[in-house]
Amino acid sequence: MSTVDDHRSPRDPLSWLAERAEHRRAAGLRRRLVPRPADSPLIDLAGNDYLGLTRHPEVTAAAIAAIREWGAGSTGSRLVTGTTELHAELEAELAGHAGTESALVFSSGYLANLGVLTALAGRGDLIVSDSLNHASLIDAARLSRARIAITPHSDVDAVAAELANRSEERALVVVESLFSVDGDTAPLRALHTACRAHGAVLVVDEAHGFGVAGPGGRGAVFEAGLAGEPDVVVAATLSKALASQGGAVLGSAELTAHLVDAARSMIFDTGLAPASAGAALAALRLIRRDPGLPELVRKRSWELYELALELGLPATAPSGAVLSVVLGEPAAAVAAAAYCLERGVRVGCFRPPSVPDGLSRLRMTSRADLSDMEVDHIRAVLSELAKKQP
Amino acid sequence: MSTVDDHRSPRDPLSWLAERAEHRRAAGLRRRLVPRPADSPLIDLAGNDYLGLTRHPEVTAAAIAAIREWGAGSTGSRLVTGTTELHAELEAELAGHAGTESALVFSSGYLANLGVLTALAGRGDLIVSDSLNHASLIDAARLSRARIAITPHSDVDAVAAELANRSEERALVVVESLFSVDGDTAPLRALHTACRAHGAVLVVDEAHGFGVAGPGGRGAVFEAGLAGEPDVVVAATLSKALASQGGAVLGSAELTAHLVDAARSMIFDTGLAPASAGAALAALRLIRRDPGLPELVRKRSWELYELALELGLPATAPSGAVLSVVLGEPAAAVAAAAYCLERGVRVGCFRPPSVPDGLSRLRMTSRADLSDMEVDHIRAVLSELAKKQP
Ligand SMILES: Cc1ncc(COP(=O)(O)O)c(C=O)c1O
Ligand SMILES: Cc1ncc(COP(=O)(O)O)c(C=O)c1O
Repeated sequence: MSTVDDHRSPRDPLSWLAERAEHRRAAGLRRRLVPRPADSPLIDLAGNDYLGLTRHPEVTAAAIAAIREWGAGSTGSRLVTGTTELHAELEAELAGHAGTESALVFSSGYLANLGVLTALAGRGDLIVSDSLNHASLIDAARLSRARIAITPHSDVDAVAAELANRSEERALVVVESLFSVDGDTAPLRALHTACRAHGAVLVVDEAHGFGVAGPGGRGAVFEAGLAGEPDVVVAATLSKALASQGGAVLGSAELTAHLVDAARSMIFDTGLAPASAGAALAALRLIRRDPGLPELVRKRSWELYELALELGLPATAPSGAVLSVVLGEPAAAVAAAAYCLERGVRVGCFRPPSVPDGLSRLRMTSRADLSDMEVDHIRAVLSELAKKQP
Repeated sequence: MSTVDDHRSPRDPLSWLAERAEHRRAAGLRRRLVPRPADSPLIDLAGNDYLGLTRHPEVTAAAIAAIREWGAGSTGSRLVTGTTELHAELEAELAGHAGTESALVFSSGYLANLGVLTALAGRGDLIVSDSLNHASLIDAARLSRARIAITPHSDVDAVAAELANRSEERALVVVESLFSVDGDTAPLRALHTACRAHGAVLVVDEAHGFGVAGPGGRGAVFEAGLAGEPDVVVAATLSKALASQGGAVLGSAELTAHLVDAARSMIFDTGLAPASAGAALAALRLIRRDPGLPELVRKRSWELYELALELGLPATAPSGAVLSVVLGEPAAAVAAAAYCLERGVRVGCFRPPSVPDGLSRLRMTSRADLSDMEVDHIRAVLSELAKKQP
């Protein structure tokens, strides 16, 4: 082993971190974790607990029962000891709700996306990816080593052209059903027609659609009549409408069997904690018992949208629970979010790299359990905020 | 949009899955999820609940209390609503235990590894990666887009040579502290000396070391005297000795602040479920109260190792909880695991691609809470198994 000092050897090879931090500070892009207390008096328009189920007594009771029955951890990867009967039950009911033959649960939606894209595409394949796709889909596509073609947001012609002009035999088209920041819906039927015409698979991330969109929250893929199609694969998360943690891939039994053989982010990862599996299953059962719940959240977000328009705030039309108010520079978005927070309303604040330069914004999410009184308070705060905009 | 049928358009563009499955079946490489019941009578030598804490009353009580206080899910990404006071408390105690200034919790160890490598290395940098590194580290290195140099297992000279001969300014050396399949320890001090000499950062995945190795389970990095060094970064998981789910990166406050700004797998992922954070914190407190616990599991695995040698089974020497019995072809490993299972002992069975071709094996993990009676039964089963080996 060489023991001579290298010319590059600073004592602290991470000293560049300080410099990088300073650049971010100057650009208004530093982030900070702010722990929230358990009994916050804030009205939450920032989280993704769309159906308001994370503290629902049946959901917490199911999570607690799962801990009592199975313990705090799943103890191993899914193929070793990390698959309990509870995981199998959850998978059967997820598939039933989505209208697919089978489902496979991952420990997060992020890892579900990594798993499905890397198991279905590799070197020599093509992934056509929407320009507004979530970071987990972007990372998944990169990790797959397929060639990546990024198409303009929701541009079906561009997708069809990429598919038609490809030299690769295999291709995936990857979109979100309800996009996570703007809250708009992908043109799923037209995309599927293009995929069918060109022998491609349509992979739809329903992170923001499952439990929210479609009849009884069965998702946007179901609503588009595409559930169970052999060339459609759905990814979902248990961390939003299902009030828990974890992810899932839904499709044919052949597909999920393939993932069990090939999806590294499932094979080499500890199985989802029993409490999270139990909570997601209870939330799913609540949705199936009360199909009006997903409608409620859509109604509430539409109210927020109309309110924003009325006040002259540049809001995006929500297909599900999410809408954005685009304010431009990071500083404007940060100031607006702080303004709301001081007045008791927590909204999301999205800056680069989460959104493109110049499109910093407030991201607001509605909840099925927002009360009329809360909506009145939100109205008052947004009215004041609107007056302060240039 | 083109509506003409493409020459590549089979009705089912996933028909290749069936063929692939058939190949795997022929090679003895098909995998199947087998749900386990809650009250299994098996002796478990397959899971990673090394300290036997996943059903410990204090651990389950803490998980339940967390659900009661915070709900079933964290409701958002860490930077939005997914950081509770419980997460902050857990991070402080993890750092305290590891002897680092700071810690950052991820929703899994897999995502912690993706986060740390992609935030610390990129195009134009070098990652020197041990040939036996875990899939999550391999995926993380690929995703970073750094140049990857794979060095022979635990070969410090090879690492030093890669560092000395590099053209890149920045370099990371990435290893596991206790390797997950063979159970051996990385030469951490020598690796650190090489890193120091060549201005590189040493990144150590303590998935199997944290809570098991070192004084009171503070980890192999602590034991090597490297805790808190500015050029050492530790990744850990909460899913093994800590009996829960989740991951963490431990290092300087500047490092974790950088991850908050740059680690996509934290920024764009839902925060760890409160139950899992609470359980991990309770497990950590148990370890800190009873520093003999990690010693117990090391003693038990050494007993298993000596037993295997006595019986003529080709076992690897365990530094922590893990040992392997290498049997060769996949079919031999599958048969041996099935043999143990029928006799009440669950062992892991590792085949390609989890291990190299020809090195299929049983992977056995010990637990601090194995009883003498259980060890006697294991002895009987392994004795019979040994007699059946060629
Ligand atoms: C579109 C989309 N996909 C995937 C994910 C990842 O899901 P999870 O947070 O459960 O890992 C998210 C959000 O977190 C998302 O918004
Ligand atoms: C060495 C190593 N690193 C990382 C991981 C991933 O941790 P987790 O299962 O918590 O995602 C594992 C095992 O699962 C592992 O063995």
